[in-house]
Amino acid sequence: MNKIITIGREFGSGGRELGKRLADHLGIAYYDKEIIEEISNRTSLAQEYVHQIVEQKPNFYFPITIGRTLHATHSDYVVKQQTSVYAEQANVLREMAEKSDCIIVGRCADYILKDHDPLRIFVYADMESKIKRCREKAEVEEHLSEKEMKKMILKVDKNRAHYYAYYTGQKWGHHANYDLCINTSALPVKEFAEALAGMIKGME
Amino acid sequence: MNKIITIGREFGSGGRELGKRLADHLGIAYYDKEIIEEISNRTSLAQEYVHQIVEQKPNFYFPITIGRTLHATHSDYVVKQQTSVYAEQANVLREMAEKSDCIIVGRCADYILKDHDPLRIFVYADMESKIKRCREKAEVEEHLSEKEMKKMILKVDKNRAHYYAYYTGQKWGHHANYDLCINTSALPVKEFAEALAGMIKGME
Repeated sequence: MNKIITIGREFGSGGRELGKRLADHLGIAYYDKEIIEEISNRTSLAQEYVHQIVEQKPNFYFPITIGRTLHATHSDYVVKQQTSVYAEQANVLREMAEKSDCIIVGRCADYILKDHDPLRIFVYADMESKIKRCREKAEVEEHLSEKEMKKMILKVDKNRAHYYAYYTGQKWGHHANYDLCINTSALPVKEFAEALAGMIKGME
Repeated sequence: MNKIITIGREFGSGGRELGKRLADHLGIAYYDKEIIEEISNRTSLAQEYVHQIVEQKPNFYFPITIGRTLHATHSDYVVKQQTSVYAEQANVLREMAEKSDCIIVGRCADYILKDHDPLRIFVYADMESKIKRCREKAEVEEHLSEKEMKKMILKVDKNRAHYYAYYTGQKWGHHANYDLCINTSALPVKEFAEALAGMIKGME
C-alpha cells in the first residue's frame, strides 16, 4: 500500500508549506490545487466555483414546505451539484492514493482515505502568527486591515470546520482525528518538516 | 531563560517514555515522580496522598447551606489541603524551571510555567494502544480484565481533565493549549523522540 500523508490546516498556519517541504524531503507527490483542477476537468465546472464548493458544506437552507421531489428548485440543483463535487473529489483522491506515495492537503482526505491508513497531520497556529504569515505569503489578502484579515481567517476556518463535520461526522481539528497536530506559532515549519521526514524515512 | 518542555499525556499513551527519551537525547533534567516526592517533603503529607490530590480537582460537593465560614468542616479542611498542595506544586515547578533546562510530565506545568515559554507537548493514543501499553509496561494493572482496564484508563483521564480545567480554566488535550500533539498509536515513541530532539537541538 502506498504511503499517504494527509494535512488538515487552519488558514494561514503554514500547512501547505509543511506539505510541500515534506514532499520534497520524501521525494513523493504533493496534491493541493491539482485536486480542484482535476475535479473541474471532470465536472466541467469552473475551478473557482469548485474551490468555493469544497470550502463550504452544502447549503440546505430553503423552506422545507416546498416539495423537493416535485419542484427542481435552484436550491435543489445547487445542493446536488455540491454533493456530486464531493463525490468526484473522493474519486480523485482515491485514484491519487492508488497511483503513488503522496501528500494531500485538505479535502477531508484523512477521512476519505482512511482505508489507506494515512499519516494524518493537522497544522494550526495562534491568530497573530496566522495574520503575520498571510501578510508575508499571500497576494490577495495584503490590502486587508488587521481586523479584516482576522475576520477572513475566522470565516475560512469556520467554513472548513462545517464542511469537515458535514461530510465526516467528525470534529475538525480534534486531536483524536489526527496522528500529529503541529502548532506553527512555536515550531518552525522548515526544521519540523526536515525532522519529520527523517523520522518517516526511518520508519519504512 | 532555561529551555522547558512540558508533557501532558493520556494514561497509557507513552508520555512518560517520550519525556524520558527526549531528556536522554537532550541531556537535560526529567521530572515526574520527583515532583510528588518534593511536595510530600514540603507539606509532610504522604506521597500516596499527594499523588491522589494532584490527579483530582478539589472536591466541593458538600451542602452549600452549611456555613463554610462558621464551621470548619472536614470537607473544608480537605479542600484547603488540596489547594495548598496545588500551590506548593506550582512553587516546586517554578524552582525546577529556574534551576536548569528540564522536561516536566503532567501537573499543569504547561500552564503554571507559561511565563517560561515552554514547548508544550500533549501525548495521546487510541484505547486499544493504551490498553496494550498498560499490559506491557505496568505492574499494577496487569491483573485487570480488558473491561476493567478500559474503565480505569477512562477514569484516570477524566480526573486529569477535571483537574486541569479546574486549575487552568482551559480544556485538557485541546490542541490550542499545546505546541505539538502526538498520537502514539501511529507514531513510534522511540523514533519520534529522536527526531524531535534533533529538531530542538537544531533550533537552539
